[in-house]
Amino acid sequence: MDKKIIKKRIKGILHDLANKSVKCLIVTNPANVTYTTGFMGGDSWAIITERSVYLLTDSRYTEQAQKECVGCKIILRPDSLPLAPALAEKLKQLKLSKTVAVEKSTSIADFELLKKEYHGLPARDTTAKMAVVQLKSVANVIETIRSCKDSSEITSIKTASRIAAKALKQTLGYIKPGITENELAGMLNFQFRKLGATSSFETIVAFGPNASRPHHQPSKRKLGKKDTILLDFGAKYNGYCCDITRCFAVGRPTPFYKKVYDTVQKAQTAAIKMIKSGIETGKVDDAARNVIRKSDLPVYGHGTGHGLGLEIHELPYLKIKSKVILKTGQIITVEPGVYIPGKLGVRIEDDILVTETGCEILTRNCPHSLLLPNRKD
Amino acid sequence: MDKKIIKKRIKGILHDLANKSVKCLIVTNPANVTYTTGFMGGDSWAIITERSVYLLTDSRYTEQAQKECVGCKIILRPDSLPLAPALAEKLKQLKLSKTVAVEKSTSIADFELLKKEYHGLPARDTTAKMAVVQLKSVANVIETIRSCKDSSEITSIKTASRIAAKALKQTLGYIKPGITENELAGMLNFQFRKLGATSSFETIVAFGPNASRPHHQPSKRKLGKKDTILLDFGAKYNGYCCDITRCFAVGRPTPFYKKVYDTVQKAQTAAIKMIKSGIETGKVDDAARNVIRKSDLPVYGHGTGHGLGLEIHELPYLKIKSKVILKTGQIITVEPGVYIPGKLGVRIEDDILVTETGCEILTRNCPHSLLLPNRKD
Repeated sequence: MDKKIIKKRIKGILHDLANKSVKCLIVTNPANVTYTTGFMGGDSWAIITERSVYLLTDSRYTEQAQKECVGCKIILRPDSLPLAPALAEKLKQLKLSKTVAVEKSTSIADFELLKKEYHGLPARDTTAKMAVVQLKSVANVIETIRSCKDSSEITSIKTASRIAAKALKQTLGYIKPGITENELAGMLNFQFRKLGATSSFETIVAFGPNASRPHHQPSKRKLGKKDTILLDFGAKYNGYCCDITRCFAVGRPTPFYKKVYDTVQKAQTAAIKMIKSGIETGKVDDAARNVIRKSDLPVYGHGTGHGLGLEIHELPYLKIKSKVILKTGQIITVEPGVYIPGKLGVRIEDDILVTETGCEILTRNCPHSLLLPNRKD
Repeated sequence: MDKKIIKKRIKGILHDLANKSVKCLIVTNPANVTYTTGFMGGDSWAIITERSVYLLTDSRYTEQAQKECVGCKIILRPDSLPLAPALAEKLKQLKLSKTVAVEKSTSIADFELLKKEYHGLPARDTTAKMAVVQLKSVANVIETIRSCKDSSEITSIKTASRIAAKALKQTLGYIKPGITENELAGMLNFQFRKLGATSSFETIVAFGPNASRPHHQPSKRKLGKKDTILLDFGAKYNGYCCDITRCFAVGRPTPFYKKVYDTVQKAQTAAIKMIKSGIETGKVDDAARNVIRKSDLPVYGHGTGHGLGLEIHELPYLKIKSKVILKTGQIITVEPGVYIPGKLGVRIEDDILVTETGCEILTRNCPHSLLLPNRKD
């Protein structure tokens, strides 16, 4: 991780905090910890002040933190001391004189413990003077900044997409009637690993009518000789996620399946056409739904898309009537679908970079082709 | 999921809530939602009242909820309405007259939104009368009950352990010099899938000195001809996790590695010997640390173990000086280790069922053998 990039991020965060009359932020969301420190491990929090950034971690991560963190100070907490009291102790030592804010994604339990320890108890380090200021909570400070990706982040997501496309290609050659959803999901994940990535979420593999459940979990169901496949998958590379859905027919698809597929494809194209900096997300959402509505097919109940980056779901969200405005540098999925319980499910999903004048499809190297390619037997 | 089992769980929860003068609990922790409704999907909350249990979900999960839920009422929220306001609306319709509690693991953001919507706004359903009572938060109500497993849960964890042992055996035959940590992790996960399970957490594979980082993430590092392997892995079956760590030497291990391995093995045995219903977890923790301390090796900084079940880390935790008492039916890991940065890392981990008179090792079918078995070439 480049020191300059982190410095720029911290500057942006401090600027935003100043507008909220806050001079210190306690970062508990793991993706935000990574974003502000470079640290990719777990169970760790960060403190951002005007002077320094601190990472509070434990002995399991000492070596990793030393390797990954740039421009931040590492504080080790003993195993016997949970995160909240360890952080309260450090806060007291910092002798802050302005409001301290905690991310609103923090649990009630952690926030209460933090308040109790910070306000209520003397610091263990007896040289530290009590300088206790108000603790409040703030929402989405880092999430909002994170939603616009810098060039290094765009590169990582592009690499993740390339890996996912390659892994899919390798996996498709392996598909034959009799394979289970579970095994196919496992094979795709294995290809990610072979290509130096991991899965950005639990791969969804749904054969036939199972695809009508948008979040179907792979089962023992075997692929038939005339069947359909929905694959919703993503590689995670260098901490960054991609998210792709493709549908395939084994053999010739039924005319109805083909009609649904073409409609979903048109819905996606209509939505992608709308994307550019400055447009309301609700309008992009509506463009996709409208195509499906006009085809007399049932309109999907989920959102049309979501931001993605260090997290698989992050700001912004493409929802019905949302007034949120798209900004240059945001990367979003566009994933309309049609679901008919007991019959079929079709969804097509790509990852799109919002630009000043339009957009760029980052998952372009993963072709939309309904027919399964010939397999290597 | 058996209706009787769920009924018994709800009875226990209501009994505990009554002691806290609470008659309604809002369940937001996904594992607790599964525990009280049978539902295995995501993004859903439950409401437990004396009369009924409700699952609040969305259209992505309609079919799954209908299939999985037993003895609970399913409420669908529209995609445009987030969980907190949708739940506040339902709460108002229920016209509760006693304190409503929210799980303390809920985020500050959700709790604030819930309070605002519940106290502040009229119900959308205009027939519902306002019957707004105090909202408070409670910690670990369901987590505590969940820590003691019933026979169906023990069976699931045993099956997960059997699958993990079998997957390891299949994977070991595949190991040869030149394989990367990443590929080995992928292969193990693939075997889980083939056996109808998933991974209960991101598999850790660490070759040589990489193992000194207890939470090392698999990398491109290749296995050498004289090398060591640490594998920390677990299968998830029927929603339940297991968690196992094994170490192997490729070829003959160095005398020092062998000494460390034997010490860790002795430390684990000493801790397991202490386990029975009624003992303090701190004493089990101490038994393991003591063996390592006496061998003049560095004592590990992490805990000696943790409960596991629907979550990979749950109550109880085996930590230094902890006064928490073990109870019959709890399932815990015992996983001491020795870590020497730049040199080696050894950890051995098994899953143990606490019984009235002692304990049962659930991961017994996964042998402790330092030497890698002959591979199938």
